[in-house]
Amino acid sequence: MDALEPAIERDVALDERPFRLEGGGELPEVTLRCAIYGCPETAPGGVILVCHALTGSARVADWWAGVTGPGRPLDPTRYAIIGVNVLGSCYGSTGPSAINPATGRPYGGRFPLVTIGDMTRAQRLALRSLGVARLTAVIGGSIGGMQALRWATDFPDDLDLCVAIGATPLPALGLALNHLQRQAIMQDPAWQSGDYAAQPAAGLSLARAIAMCSYKSAALFDKRFGRRPNRSGEDPRRSLAGRYDVAGYLDHQGEKFFRRFDANSYLALSKAMDVFDLSDAELARIRARAHLVGLSSDWLFPAAGVRALAERLRAVNVSAQYDEILTDHGHDGFLAEPDAVAPLLSAALETIRS
Amino acid sequence: MDALEPAIERDVALDERPFRLEGGGELPEVTLRCAIYGCPETAPGGVILVCHALTGSARVADWWAGVTGPGRPLDPTRYAIIGVNVLGSCYGSTGPSAINPATGRPYGGRFPLVTIGDMTRAQRLALRSLGVARLTAVIGGSIGGMQALRWATDFPDDLDLCVAIGATPLPALGLALNHLQRQAIMQDPAWQSGDYAAQPAAGLSLARAIAMCSYKSAALFDKRFGRRPNRSGEDPRRSLAGRYDVAGYLDHQGEKFFRRFDANSYLALSKAMDVFDLSDAELARIRARAHLVGLSSDWLFPAAGVRALAERLRAVNVSAQYDEILTDHGHDGFLAEPDAVAPLLSAALETIRS
Repeated sequence: MDALEPAIERDVALDERPFRLEGGGELPEVTLRCAIYGCPETAPGGVILVCHALTGSARVADWWAGVTGPGRPLDPTRYAIIGVNVLGSCYGSTGPSAINPATGRPYGGRFPLVTIGDMTRAQRLALRSLGVARLTAVIGGSIGGMQALRWATDFPDDLDLCVAIGATPLPALGLALNHLQRQAIMQDPAWQSGDYAAQPAAGLSLARAIAMCSYKSAALFDKRFGRRPNRSGEDPRRSLAGRYDVAGYLDHQGEKFFRRFDANSYLALSKAMDVFDLSDAELARIRARAHLVGLSSDWLFPAAGVRALAERLRAVNVSAQYDEILTDHGHDGFLAEPDAVAPLLSAALETIRS
Repeated sequence: MDALEPAIERDVALDERPFRLEGGGELPEVTLRCAIYGCPETAPGGVILVCHALTGSARVADWWAGVTGPGRPLDPTRYAIIGVNVLGSCYGSTGPSAINPATGRPYGGRFPLVTIGDMTRAQRLALRSLGVARLTAVIGGSIGGMQALRWATDFPDDLDLCVAIGATPLPALGLALNHLQRQAIMQDPAWQSGDYAAQPAAGLSLARAIAMCSYKSAALFDKRFGRRPNRSGEDPRRSLAGRYDVAGYLDHQGEKFFRRFDANSYLALSKAMDVFDLSDAELARIRARAHLVGLSSDWLFPAAGVRALAERLRAVNVSAQYDEILTDHGHDGFLAEPDAVAPLLSAALETIRS
């Protein structure tokens, strides 16, 4: 299936220069890559901002094809669907691999810390530049869900609905795994304190492979790979380097990844994910309806934690619904199970239609 | 509490030279470090072999103090308790850091692949040298449990009881995590294809830290560390290097580890763990009573898999009991919950007393 093409894809330079960051740093200028499906001026249902996860892009229909398009919940004939590549990423927006106008060279290791709050504030400025002042909904999974929640806490009057799938402040095991992924990158001598000419391929691949283990579930791995030798035919019992199938899969994922994603961006976004947190006072500011979705086999953001967040929301009088998707795809379920996600998105959008 | 000292601790050189390995290789000579608590000749209950896990030693009372000693299940006044450092380890037995008599230098990267079967066959030869031909029980957790099971399949007439805690052939997620740990070591330039003068500290630390995540449970990490900043006082929100407490803990574990364990031994034992498997034909050879114990929050060797192994044993007419320890210590529960392990060991030993 060919992915739906955005009606418009453009880079929006933010008016705020320098762009001030929550952590105290600043960026002389920020540009965000935006993709728009449908027409913000005429869409009968208004505008939906769809926030991508760690390594996604503004092109929502590329990574969420199963729920985006005519006849699907994110239907561009009904809503204008906007995706914005996050601040710090490497898919068109200002990030560590962008050129620092002050030096004429990539930021590299000197890119300042960015937060989920910085990302959403930058998105909001970009949307204003595009003439969008109000959103029907902000929707996302994983760190996309963190952004949806941050929108709801920080800009309570700007949106009617917040849908966050598999997203909470990161529990301790997630903080642990993110730390180890960053260590893998930063221990690679090719990383060069962030000022590399060529990617730290080994470290970035290993980081991705560690992450893949946390995105899937043990049951899925057993089903897909079991104890089978690598499909290339090598015998794991005959040499130290001989791999089982699951190891070959992870290596392959790592290799694909370092060809498509910048190591410093990975560090920046992983750190932003760690730092994201939600106080009760912040939650109490929310005026949008909140729909939280847990993924039953997610052990990076366990469903019980998502459910507990919904309870915290209700405790501060926010309208919060909790649903759970029964899946053995783990955290990746929000991408891998579009048939389960779609009805929940439709139902959530239905609640604000009247 | 001071650990119980072994009555005898000695290195046993095996008579079989060269020692032939299952994988096709051989070692010109093998020495195993043995620790004996109590007296094999006079112990009324006979001899119990206790098999250590990945990074343990022959000194059983050092790492399993809570179940070893007078008045405990592994009581040296009743049984002679023997621990044998496994082939491939670095605590006194022949492993990659031992001197290859053919070259006068450490084996390093040329140490051949060893299997759990090689370990148990070597243990058996060492026990024969010590005058021990028959065992009351072979007991172990994790890869110690793999050894207990291998003893039961390969030397069915040598033991009355096999107790294996948190041990099965490794599921796909475990194969994945072991692979990533080995990658972390082998990607460290200091590894030098195994022929290092100084340990590949960064890679070995990272491997240990990845492993620690799989030895514990998410619930335990939440309870112990939550989202607290590192106890050193650094602020994780202010710098890329700033750590949460769980990250500081993992780094500390990694650092302690590379000072005490050889990287090539880690590779060798991790590989042996991967390759361990059990066919139905092998299981059907068992004549000992088998007691399998699952750990409820273990996600490296899920309790459901241990239970399934007990069912496979019963299906081939082996006497197999399954018990489960309710714990949030994850795989480490066999070490961290001696008060839960002790009654199960006592009950298992009781079944063969009559």
